[in-house]
Amino acid sequence: MYERHQKTLEGAVAAIRARTGWSAYPEMPSGRVYGETARADGQAAFEARLNTPFEIDQPGTVGQVGAEDAPFGVKLGITYPKADLGVLLPAVRQAMRSWSDAEPETRVGICLEILDRINKRSFEMAGAVMMTTGQGFMMAFQAGGPHAQDRGLEAVAYAWEEMIRVPRQVTWRKKVSKTDVVQLEKRYHLVPRGVAAVIGCSTFPTWNSYPGLFASLATGNGIVVKPHPGSILPLAITVAIAREVLLEQGFKPDVVTLAADTHDEPITKQLVIRPEIGIVDYTGSSEFGTWIEQHATQAVVFTEKAGVNAIILDSVDDLKAVTGNIAFTLSLYSGQMCTTSQNIFIPKDGLSTAEGHVDFDDAAAAIVKAVDWLLGDPKRGAEILGAIQSPKTLQRLDEAAGEGAEVLREPVAIANEQFAEARVRSPLILKVDHSQQNLYMREMFGPIVYIVATRSTDQSIELAAKAARELGALTCGIYSTDSAVLQRAEDAMVEAGVPVSCNLTGQIYVNQSAAFSDFHVSGANPSGNATLCDAAFVATRFRVVQSRVQVPVEAEAHAGV
Amino acid sequence: MYERHQKTLEGAVAAIRARTGWSAYPEMPSGRVYGETARADGQAAFEARLNTPFEIDQPGTVGQVGAEDAPFGVKLGITYPKADLGVLLPAVRQAMRSWSDAEPETRVGICLEILDRINKRSFEMAGAVMMTTGQGFMMAFQAGGPHAQDRGLEAVAYAWEEMIRVPRQVTWRKKVSKTDVVQLEKRYHLVPRGVAAVIGCSTFPTWNSYPGLFASLATGNGIVVKPHPGSILPLAITVAIAREVLLEQGFKPDVVTLAADTHDEPITKQLVIRPEIGIVDYTGSSEFGTWIEQHATQAVVFTEKAGVNAIILDSVDDLKAVTGNIAFTLSLYSGQMCTTSQNIFIPKDGLSTAEGHVDFDDAAAAIVKAVDWLLGDPKRGAEILGAIQSPKTLQRLDEAAGEGAEVLREPVAIANEQFAEARVRSPLILKVDHSQQNLYMREMFGPIVYIVATRSTDQSIELAAKAARELGALTCGIYSTDSAVLQRAEDAMVEAGVPVSCNLTGQIYVNQSAAFSDFHVSGANPSGNATLCDAAFVATRFRVVQSRVQVPVEAEAHAGV
Repeated sequence: MYERHQKTLEGAVAAIRARTGWSAYPEMPSGRVYGETARADGQAAFEARLNTPFEIDQPGTVGQVGAEDAPFGVKLGITYPKADLGVLLPAVRQAMRSWSDAEPETRVGICLEILDRINKRSFEMAGAVMMTTGQGFMMAFQAGGPHAQDRGLEAVAYAWEEMIRVPRQVTWRKKVSKTDVVQLEKRYHLVPRGVAAVIGCSTFPTWNSYPGLFASLATGNGIVVKPHPGSILPLAITVAIAREVLLEQGFKPDVVTLAADTHDEPITKQLVIRPEIGIVDYTGSSEFGTWIEQHATQAVVFTEKAGVNAIILDSVDDLKAVTGNIAFTLSLYSGQMCTTSQNIFIPKDGLSTAEGHVDFDDAAAAIVKAVDWLLGDPKRGAEILGAIQSPKTLQRLDEAAGEGAEVLREPVAIANEQFAEARVRSPLILKVDHSQQNLYMREMFGPIVYIVATRSTDQSIELAAKAARELGALTCGIYSTDSAVLQRAEDAMVEAGVPVSCNLTGQIYVNQSAAFSDFHVSGANPSGNATLCDAAFVATRFRVVQSRVQVPVEAEAHAGV
Repeated sequence: MYERHQKTLEGAVAAIRARTGWSAYPEMPSGRVYGETARADGQAAFEARLNTPFEIDQPGTVGQVGAEDAPFGVKLGITYPKADLGVLLPAVRQAMRSWSDAEPETRVGICLEILDRINKRSFEMAGAVMMTTGQGFMMAFQAGGPHAQDRGLEAVAYAWEEMIRVPRQVTWRKKVSKTDVVQLEKRYHLVPRGVAAVIGCSTFPTWNSYPGLFASLATGNGIVVKPHPGSILPLAITVAIAREVLLEQGFKPDVVTLAADTHDEPITKQLVIRPEIGIVDYTGSSEFGTWIEQHATQAVVFTEKAGVNAIILDSVDDLKAVTGNIAFTLSLYSGQMCTTSQNIFIPKDGLSTAEGHVDFDDAAAAIVKAVDWLLGDPKRGAEILGAIQSPKTLQRLDEAAGEGAEVLREPVAIANEQFAEARVRSPLILKVDHSQQNLYMREMFGPIVYIVATRSTDQSIELAAKAARELGALTCGIYSTDSAVLQRAEDAMVEAGVPVSCNLTGQIYVNQSAAFSDFHVSGANPSGNATLCDAAFVATRFRVVQSRVQVPVEAEAHAGV
């Protein structure tokens, strides 16, 4: 397996060093790449899963469970094994023994084979991701498929680098007196941290879970995947593929297991504090993430939480190009990305463009117009917006509209021609003054946008940085033709731990994060305590335990051990 | 500074990769190395500090504090600045701004200059370590001086490797359509985690603190050193040297500060949970370390706690060589090392040697005899034993002797010819049955040794592993002429997360851990959650925050930013 995928691994290792742009899995849902029947086959495979139990033959199964969300109005009707954690977790611990004893080459090779098989089923995965998260098809395919697989591969590459940094065996010598030399044969054993709990989220079940899952798996840990109750299927398929490969390769499939639950009977809290759990990877709400950080103190905890992201408009060349770019970010997946911008700061006196000064209200209107245009074509609009994952987001949208801020754009319930029951809303755009911090200085997840009138760009920067420091932020976009302003913004955002994107126009967006190049989540503000991926994300997932045997000086053998 | 010390850094980086044995700082207290007057000068410098306030001009000083232990009966009478944390910590945060903005080369160069100056003052440091910890002179010089400096350098080398893995600036390109390519200039900024609290211990104030201190400092964090109230001086000297170098190099000295306290008014708990604190490094008792792990959830926490270390006797060639080696481990620094063996497991039916079978009682007697011989020469005995750091250890010794276990060797209060008031005790050796787990299956810090009669070597291995899993362990020694037994022991100890040393005789001991080769503390059992040092020990001390600027394709410049 290692040899089969060695080139992919080498490419990934080179890519995380160079960071100049690379991908292992083709992002276009093209028949030429994935096979001419792949789309139809994948769609059929997805549909065959509907209204049936999803079989996973793992220990500690006590019935079936599952009630996934239906953002497009199509109920999945799938149930999954319900886990008795008191039986499942000891079984995972038992299964991981031979897994952790395996050579890094073996584990990494199997991880890459799992990713390769997941890749081949990207269309089936697209269906599963689309119908549980509400993403449009193209996004579900890309973010749920090849981009997520790239993230998993990136984690494997980091794990590989960390593991091979430690030599397997060395001879150590020390002169201990004028005449005596002591010689030890030392061996360094990589040991896993424990069972890793991978807590998935409802919006990006694979993209956000694969880094932790594959980082833990490659470093020898056993895995319990606990999907969000709203989006179980994508991770159930993942678990099933992983188990299939493990079994084929002579390992116990219980190295990777599933623990599904429902909104009504959540199990995450009891799972993450169990003594068998040595690692927790979590993506989701800030509140729950902070609870895990504070309570799962027996484990090493990696969180990606939420934040309040900003765009700062200072000055631009081409306002239309800028608002077009911003409109796509605000609209894509109905603003349900952790990287979506929420607050757009514009000086109340307006901004300069190549074509002259533009007033605040005109700039705000240009953003509204750009959103209107983008979503004006029903087919394009439906594909970009997708559907609202959670009914709570609809509720939040209604509340935001009724809090007294000036509504610049109503959140229209656009009809989806393909799915009549889809929960669709276009972005709500509100105008507020910088003093109305009670409105915009809080996380309002979903297609809710505040255009904030500030005294100046310096205040815009200050407020964006404040939100990042206090509430977390994963992205910040800034537009300025003044390099001094860009530098001030960059300095402030770096200090607030927010990746900053400058002057993006065309087909590159502030809400995008590229595997093998971008460090997604800084870990340096409340939006999360880890980066997906960097060396720190994998280095603590295994430990080194050494043995040393004294041998006669100049003896070369390891004393027969 | 970087260029001045580049060769040392390169040597250290090569050494942590090769792990075959290396040292930067000479361990012999030799006039030829350190200068013919170095010993006298160092002794004079130490004595000049006695009974005077130790001046550190740092913000938030509200009086003087200090009441260090006097294991040799010599009271230091030194006081240190008493810190108002509410003033000190914001000042450190302020001071670390320009420090974290500096290039990795600059920071690493300054760290190496600090270590170099500390090295030159190793004799002064030896006095400070000796008179506060109770270590004999040679040990205080080596472990408190060059070995600790090597540990600090090792941490700097790991920090350097982690920091330079991230490129500073790259050009990223992606084909986004048949005709369009997007190009971003990306910059990766290393940002510190916050203020690092370094919590020292009473027995190895420098050796145990330097890894965390230098790992945090090199990666751009500010430092508050909180020494153990019993042993402040060694870290106060360290802080003073660091501040001197920082000031000379144009940085604010408050990047490194001291927060001393006393046994009566401890400040560690309030320090480690403060919001400014982003990193905690702790060495000390298990109870306190676990408290920090559970409460300082706002920070990344590295702990080295305590454990119950074992030696397993199965079969030997030369019993005298083995017992001589064990006797030194049991006696060195009165067994007050976190790596000292507490339980010696011997099958109740005895063991085989090259000269025939030896009964359990004879084997135990051989260990007692070896200790007696080693400590029989008063001068050698005084140097090896040093003094008991804490009165609590004396109390524990008395209690252990009175709990009903058979006393094989009394803890004699040997006279120290140089220091009449020194607290000196030689090892107490007790004989217990494996069933008496209430006695030996607990940590008994100090010169307290249980020789445990087991049913078999397999039971010895099982009990040693159990202690490691449940109570933690930092070392395990095993003696066997049977390679299958060694393999079984190695497997069990690796699973229990204990570094294992096989068949050590001569001048290499189970309680020793070599910088640049041994991984001290596995982090894989309750004896600690981190290793001093490995990549995981430094990788989480800084974060990467990126910026990306869109530039026209083929433009090479960074858009003037």
